[in-house]
Amino acid sequence: MSAASIDESKKPIGVFDSGVGGLTVLNELKKQLPGEDLIYLGDTARVPYGTKSALSVTRYARQAAQTLVDRDIKLLVLACNTVSAVAVEPLQVALPNLLVVGVVEPGAEASCKATRNGHIGVIATESTVSNQAYQRAILTRRPDATIQAQACSLFVALAEEGWHDGDLVEQIVAKCLSPIIKASSNSLTGMDTLVLGCTHFPALKASISRVLGGDVALVDSAETTARYVAGLLSDRALLNEQSEGQVQFMVTDGPERFARVAPCFFSGSVEPSAIELVDIQHFGG
Amino acid sequence: MSAASIDESKKPIGVFDSGVGGLTVLNELKKQLPGEDLIYLGDTARVPYGTKSALSVTRYARQAAQTLVDRDIKLLVLACNTVSAVAVEPLQVALPNLLVVGVVEPGAEASCKATRNGHIGVIATESTVSNQAYQRAILTRRPDATIQAQACSLFVALAEEGWHDGDLVEQIVAKCLSPIIKASSNSLTGMDTLVLGCTHFPALKASISRVLGGDVALVDSAETTARYVAGLLSDRALLNEQSEGQVQFMVTDGPERFARVAPCFFSGSVEPSAIELVDIQHFGG
Repeated sequence: MSAASIDESKKPIGVFDSGVGGLTVLNELKKQLPGEDLIYLGDTARVPYGTKSALSVTRYARQAAQTLVDRDIKLLVLACNTVSAVAVEPLQVALPNLLVVGVVEPGAEASCKATRNGHIGVIATESTVSNQAYQRAILTRRPDATIQAQACSLFVALAEEGWHDGDLVEQIVAKCLSPIIKASSNSLTGMDTLVLGCTHFPALKASISRVLGGDVALVDSAETTARYVAGLLSDRALLNEQSEGQVQFMVTDGPERFARVAPCFFSGSVEPSAIELVDIQHFGG
Repeated sequence: MSAASIDESKKPIGVFDSGVGGLTVLNELKKQLPGEDLIYLGDTARVPYGTKSALSVTRYARQAAQTLVDRDIKLLVLACNTVSAVAVEPLQVALPNLLVVGVVEPGAEASCKATRNGHIGVIATESTVSNQAYQRAILTRRPDATIQAQACSLFVALAEEGWHDGDLVEQIVAKCLSPIIKASSNSLTGMDTLVLGCTHFPALKASISRVLGGDVALVDSAETTARYVAGLLSDRALLNEQSEGQVQFMVTDGPERFARVAPCFFSGSVEPSAIELVDIQHFGG
């Protein structure tokens, strides 16, 4: 191993999300790769991306990527389904020397491995559902798959408010999921796998699981993405071998709110004083 | 009346909101002032403002105000509580020749008229609650008032998803309101008036009313703001006397979603083709 590659392995991993949801991905990275230094950037000034156009989302992602590249990262995780769905390719073209990993491909891969009957459900934000990123990524791997996708925008608000379980939350989850459950029960096979296609949704995993019953496998894209990153770094001899990495946070607005909401998604500590307020819009994009 | 003032009266009213919630104010303006031409600007690229800092919100409001001033408006309504709470004064300084009306002052005024025992509740977004705009506006008018304010961020998502009534919505509303109801029942007087301090909330008015019971008067700031604008234009001989005004829409992102969600808040028609996509960020601010 050359001196250059040793240095490269010590560089941090950049994790970009539109707000706080990507902290579920950060959480899994920290769990699976405890030696890595992690820099999280949440574009809290412009969250949510889920209702914004592909053009805007791609522009914001370029600004964020440039901000993290300036911090000398070795790999960029787009820890946001909306960003992953539209911006992976433009970013790889714009930054050809950077490893860019989205959450859609690992989630699609995991769902194709999990399904027995080829009937896969996807729940996500409106934009992720309508741009069909998961549908395409699943069909590339399994052209005979039956896919049902549904927007569950309300889950984002529930997750951020800390409404994660209990009877009322399950009733809300059941009402939100009723169209996809009904469509599934009307089909010959019935879906046996559901992709949580928004990084906020793992916070509601237990409630979703109770509503669907044990026969439906839930694919948590935070978990699958962290596993994919671990494999990629290992293959390229880029794993940081130190025992415990540092975690830094950058937000584009409201560090106090970020510190308050973060524990809904991230199990490590997030001190308000450790959160840096940054302006990323000057990058144009 | 001079020729200049006749021309002035024919100019449109500008209505600015962070997204779709201000359509409840537009709706009331259309109802109470059918002759006025109205131009609505929703900053859908950066919605929601409720979780953003005062500095960012003021900057966005200046960009929006400049966009509407370029359309030659006679009066600007800040149809967003978050914006009204922080940006009325900065805008009046920046644009001294423009009439600027927020929703906070009319709502505070109406609540002071409605209350019998001086115990007023305020529900709003986090930023409106924490910057205490309503609390200050009420105490200026009624220094002996007892005020209880509470953030109900989840109501925004419910309103936009079209979850306005029904048993489940009432259960959610009851859970969200339980802290303020409990605090009220522990006080000597008990609140007799509740300000709906977010323009989204009138969509949930019936459910909120059923949860609180008939003894609590609800102050709908959309209604009170439209009444205030009508009085101001009448006082200044600026009312447009035509029989039916035009309504135009501008958004900074996602006109299709805007057209789809708008009927939750606005009873007039909103054709996708009548919605103009604008960039307001080039104004700096």
